[in-house]
Amino acid sequence: MSKTITTEQLGKGAAKPALTDDGILRLYSMRYCPYAQRAHLVLNAKKVPYHVININLLEKPEWLIEVSALLKVPALQLVEEKDKPSLIESLVISEYVDEKYPQNPLLSKDPLKKAQDKILLERFSAITNAFMKILLQKTGLDDYWQGVDIFEEELKKRGTPFFGGEKPGYVDYMIWPWFERLAVVKYQFEDQYNFDEKRFENIGKWIALLKQDPVVQSYIASDEAHINFWKARFAAKK
Amino acid sequence: MSKTITTEQLGKGAAKPALTDDGILRLYSMRYCPYAQRAHLVLNAKKVPYHVININLLEKPEWLIEVSALLKVPALQLVEEKDKPSLIESLVISEYVDEKYPQNPLLSKDPLKKAQDKILLERFSAITNAFMKILLQKTGLDDYWQGVDIFEEELKKRGTPFFGGEKPGYVDYMIWPWFERLAVVKYQFEDQYNFDEKRFENIGKWIALLKQDPVVQSYIASDEAHINFWKARFAAKK
Repeated sequence: MSKTITTEQLGKGAAKPALTDDGILRLYSMRYCPYAQRAHLVLNAKKVPYHVININLLEKPEWLIEVSALLKVPALQLVEEKDKPSLIESLVISEYVDEKYPQNPLLSKDPLKKAQDKILLERFSAITNAFMKILLQKTGLDDYWQGVDIFEEELKKRGTPFFGGEKPGYVDYMIWPWFERLAVVKYQFEDQYNFDEKRFENIGKWIALLKQDPVVQSYIASDEAHINFWKARFAAKK
Repeated sequence: MSKTITTEQLGKGAAKPALTDDGILRLYSMRYCPYAQRAHLVLNAKKVPYHVININLLEKPEWLIEVSALLKVPALQLVEEKDKPSLIESLVISEYVDEKYPQNPLLSKDPLKKAQDKILLERFSAITNAFMKILLQKTGLDDYWQGVDIFEEELKKRGTPFFGGEKPGYVDYMIWPWFERLAVVKYQFEDQYNFDEKRFENIGKWIALLKQDPVVQSYIASDEAHINFWKARFAAKK
């Protein structure tokens, strides 16, 4: 599990953390980034140890470019490989970790099932796009629910408690971070927030089950913490 | 290799082709779509037989929704699987075909190399986005060349004639369709077109080599054909 090195965010002017050559993976992250959360969930699901270096994304440290060519998080540095390369893109990192560490496999080995899960994740952009609109413009709630419809329908079709079957799999962990942030959607819309428990019957149960999942619990933040983060982030952007 | 059923594009009102239950894959395509071309190249590289059903994307046939939920091409219908499911998204289709048919493997089986190839393909959006701008607005040529820089640099770093090594691999076939369309970029900019053979020394050689590759040749269109397609498409859009 994670061996946190930095608890506060490292920003402009911050020294690069002095790390011993212990061969342990290094995850460049930001506590409230939903994409970075995907990497945490997969690493935790696999019980792979890793260091966490949290980055201030508003004022990035100068050395970030050495470990993340596009200055993005998550970035996973593979310190045991030649030249200590870094991987970026949350889905690429997650699939890499799933393939590299065979314990508790998340993606199916069946090419068709794997392809169908990836198509489903492509369609998840309906939700990530609506979420950004909700955060930045306080519009897009209907679009958001229409995105959730896709997953409600698919979960019903699969007929299992999780997208991965009887336990959470790749799709579950890849989409969870946005459902964990429903409190932020609610905060943005206040009285207009209308999660429909009947329309989202299967997703509603799925959310309740995932909140109890040990992997999700290993990196969950409270509704209040998510809301406070976004409030502070908006204030900083103004 | 492909067993073309329809040579002309099927559009609104066109009957769904009557196909015998021969168990052969069905690729819903459009002759000049670069994304669809990816699927053709991978299927041809694997020597997997498939039927081609070309679709008129400006006026789509009513039955397209039955085989492509988002009305996109390429869509690959797996007629031998239960319920005859279709896959969409060119990269998902291509990876599926590569995994399902082990002959002539295209993506590396090494998780790190595979992840690095996928990150490179994420960065290819610099080129696909610039290409769309060039087509629609006749701007973005500098952005296009900056996208090519990424691939020039990477090919130099890899030190092999192809991204896949000594022969074309996954990245080569996934990006080729846009390089085949350089004639369209040239057509759009006329005298301002400035492919720099020194700046793109490795990519220049790579283009010449790929033009000779039997798989690329199996689905290549002439510069004139590409230009005529785009001219007709623009005229239709007006």
